[in-house]
Amino acid sequence: MTVDAALLERLAAVVGPAGCVADAAAMEPYLTEERGLFRGRAAMVVRPATTAEVAEVVRLCAAYRVPLVPQGGNTGLVGGGIPFENGDEIVIALGRMNRIRGLDAANFTITAEAGCILADVQRAAADADRLFPLSLAAEGSCQIGGNIATNAGGVAVLRYGNMRELVLGLEVVLPDGQVWNGLGALRKDNTGYDLKQLFIGAEGTLGIVTAAVLKLFPKPADVQTALVGLADLDRVLELLARVRTASGDAVTAFELIPRIGLDLALRHVAGTADPLDAPHPWYALVELSSSSPAGGLRDILEGTLMAAIDDGVVADAVVAASLEQRSALWRLREVIPEAQKREGGSIKHDVAVPVSTVPAFIRAATADVEAALPGVRVVAFGHLGDGNIHFNLTQPPGADRAAFLGEWERANRIVHDRVAQLGGSISAEHGIGRLKRGELARYKSAVDLELMRKIKSAIDPAGIMNPGKIL
Amino acid sequence: MTVDAALLERLAAVVGPAGCVADAAAMEPYLTEERGLFRGRAAMVVRPATTAEVAEVVRLCAAYRVPLVPQGGNTGLVGGGIPFENGDEIVIALGRMNRIRGLDAANFTITAEAGCILADVQRAAADADRLFPLSLAAEGSCQIGGNIATNAGGVAVLRYGNMRELVLGLEVVLPDGQVWNGLGALRKDNTGYDLKQLFIGAEGTLGIVTAAVLKLFPKPADVQTALVGLADLDRVLELLARVRTASGDAVTAFELIPRIGLDLALRHVAGTADPLDAPHPWYALVELSSSSPAGGLRDILEGTLMAAIDDGVVADAVVAASLEQRSALWRLREVIPEAQKREGGSIKHDVAVPVSTVPAFIRAATADVEAALPGVRVVAFGHLGDGNIHFNLTQPPGADRAAFLGEWERANRIVHDRVAQLGGSISAEHGIGRLKRGELARYKSAVDLELMRKIKSAIDPAGIMNPGKIL
Repeated sequence: MTVDAALLERLAAVVGPAGCVADAAAMEPYLTEERGLFRGRAAMVVRPATTAEVAEVVRLCAAYRVPLVPQGGNTGLVGGGIPFENGDEIVIALGRMNRIRGLDAANFTITAEAGCILADVQRAAADADRLFPLSLAAEGSCQIGGNIATNAGGVAVLRYGNMRELVLGLEVVLPDGQVWNGLGALRKDNTGYDLKQLFIGAEGTLGIVTAAVLKLFPKPADVQTALVGLADLDRVLELLARVRTASGDAVTAFELIPRIGLDLALRHVAGTADPLDAPHPWYALVELSSSSPAGGLRDILEGTLMAAIDDGVVADAVVAASLEQRSALWRLREVIPEAQKREGGSIKHDVAVPVSTVPAFIRAATADVEAALPGVRVVAFGHLGDGNIHFNLTQPPGADRAAFLGEWERANRIVHDRVAQLGGSISAEHGIGRLKRGELARYKSAVDLELMRKIKSAIDPAGIMNPGKIL
Repeated sequence: MTVDAALLERLAAVVGPAGCVADAAAMEPYLTEERGLFRGRAAMVVRPATTAEVAEVVRLCAAYRVPLVPQGGNTGLVGGGIPFENGDEIVIALGRMNRIRGLDAANFTITAEAGCILADVQRAAADADRLFPLSLAAEGSCQIGGNIATNAGGVAVLRYGNMRELVLGLEVVLPDGQVWNGLGALRKDNTGYDLKQLFIGAEGTLGIVTAAVLKLFPKPADVQTALVGLADLDRVLELLARVRTASGDAVTAFELIPRIGLDLALRHVAGTADPLDAPHPWYALVELSSSSPAGGLRDILEGTLMAAIDDGVVADAVVAASLEQRSALWRLREVIPEAQKREGGSIKHDVAVPVSTVPAFIRAATADVEAALPGVRVVAFGHLGDGNIHFNLTQPPGADRAAFLGEWERANRIVHDRVAQLGGSISAEHGIGRLKRGELARYKSAVDLELMRKIKSAIDPAGIMNPGKIL
């Protein structure tokens, strides 16, 4: 460790005893990601309680030229919030900045500090008869600042957009320790460059988000959910267009499930049951929601599905008749990763392509990997409404797990080449962090990379903000 | 004029005779804005037909260090697309790049070149049973590239967002003549910095947008419109929240009209009539729309308004019973600027504040200007749903028009100070251009301005892209 002890003393003084984590064991949870892919070291973990403390921490680190790694709930999957192994970085964890600064129901906005847990923001909105729509698996522990830094997606993007679309204003500590107050709560503002866009999705490489003004929406009062069986993957696009149109664009989730995903769920997860009489090669989990207390979505969903059956677009469908049935349908989708794990090793991809090319992508990429890895089982599922597919590969039955996982990079190359060919994204939701830096360099054009480097150099010329991530 | 004749020859060779406008009379339409506030000169107007031609024009101008002024339909109001008076700039008008490159109904996207007229894009979408929702007064002549460069707003922002939210991908010619191909058609993509955000709303100061992938939506099938009379401006917020919730967030327009606006319309514009029995101090024009052919919005709108009357939230209301009635209601809103003009001189402001503070803003700013300009008549109207108010001042009856207009800057200061106090924007829709550069410098913080300058220097170090605009 090469960090000056004087800096550590001064940092400790800024954040006080409650905000200073210097003991090796206590630092541990901040140095490892959940999947265990990255395990770093740090000179110190600081947990500031205010924007002023964050600014002072950044000013000190800038003066000593010591790099900072901002961290939210540490639920990332690409190593973006984990320091490197050499131990000369400071982790700045925002969890103590967890105040809801205000909620303006008439403006449909909430102002939350970076360390607020996503579920707490959802709850605060609901208590005011409003909806904060961002929803994802880690919502019980991920933090708003991390959601912003990674431009989080999740299951309601089709209707409400990614985190980027939900942010109206930001407060950011810049790499020189200045505080940028961009906490506007405006729906229209064309006064120069939209600076907040720089920091959303930048994974902490351009500054540290300390607070945000977020959009709220009317709280849903009518939610209807169906599981739809499809004989032909291509028809899923027609189904999506029909339900979007018929419902007045009230589709909040449109998830694709392959038969093998359902089979694995039925095989490995207790309490699951096939909700349709016969098996179908593909399924769509469709959810409509509306704040209108007048109801009506159930009739629309049933009517649309019946017409689609008559027209041969879908094979069969069930609409949940109770909250319990709705949960059971969602469970079939949610347990797929767990069921896959029980079946053996998995090689995973978080990719996006234009929605219209999802069927072509799945067919082509499946043929590619089946040719390269005989016996592999493709489990392609996820957010079809956004073109975002978790294209996961389960090992051949009885194959050696480690040997299969040894093919990870070769499989990545095959799948990502297909994605690139279709104008897609090699990281739809999870970001780049450390894990996908090489893939970014491979698939982005020289012009893209040069523009990104220019931005990085302009905002963080000393390179102290989360260096070695993204670029 | 100091521009090297060799450059002009080479530019003329790049764009050919059809793309070269060098004659003074022929250049005229490109050098003046509609309101006549700015009248510039140019060494030449070039009208490239392809991205490659744009790139070559930029490369040549960069080599000769001659500034470029990108121009769309020339419908701007702040001088952003008009060259300065010294005649040493090249205007690059994108109108010949007007191809729709593709429409993908299943992906709900359209790919259009920068010179496409907005109305043509709306039409192309409608022909494919889709909606492109951007809608504003200049839609018959403004161009997509200009809409992107100015982050255009208009009347459907409450439901669909500003232009920024409608752009999925961009093709941009950078200040060094390189072409950045960011024409992705993806709903989720977290692979590094979101570079397209740089160019949206940058008013051509960072590059020239040549094409875009835009979001489409299901085409509305059910549109319902009401004019609502309010006794109390404060209650308009309650009405907005009620109709958003009751309709399942299907409110596509929510416009505020003051009684004086209606009075001026009735006085000066033929064929207008007061649609309610008695006068009310304030009105809201409310429109709901949905792609659902099931209908139902009319019942929802009527039910919500009846309950609001019972609860004392609104005083009276009429729901349009025909397309003709709907047009008549919209006409009352649309003719306000024209009616104001007939009443004498007007001092105008395009401002935004948080929606919840609109009533407080209008009250405070009205008191301020009435104290400063005795007899002035405040006509505050516009997009209340977005917090965007056109806070216009009509001269006192019988006052001297020129003397009144001489108070423009004093009035700006009073109104903009109030806007700033409420965390608002001094340019909600129209941008900065040349007109509001001084106001930008006055109301933005030093940190804001420094960040903007860093971005400008990083992307356009030679300063040849529309210099002197915004910054």
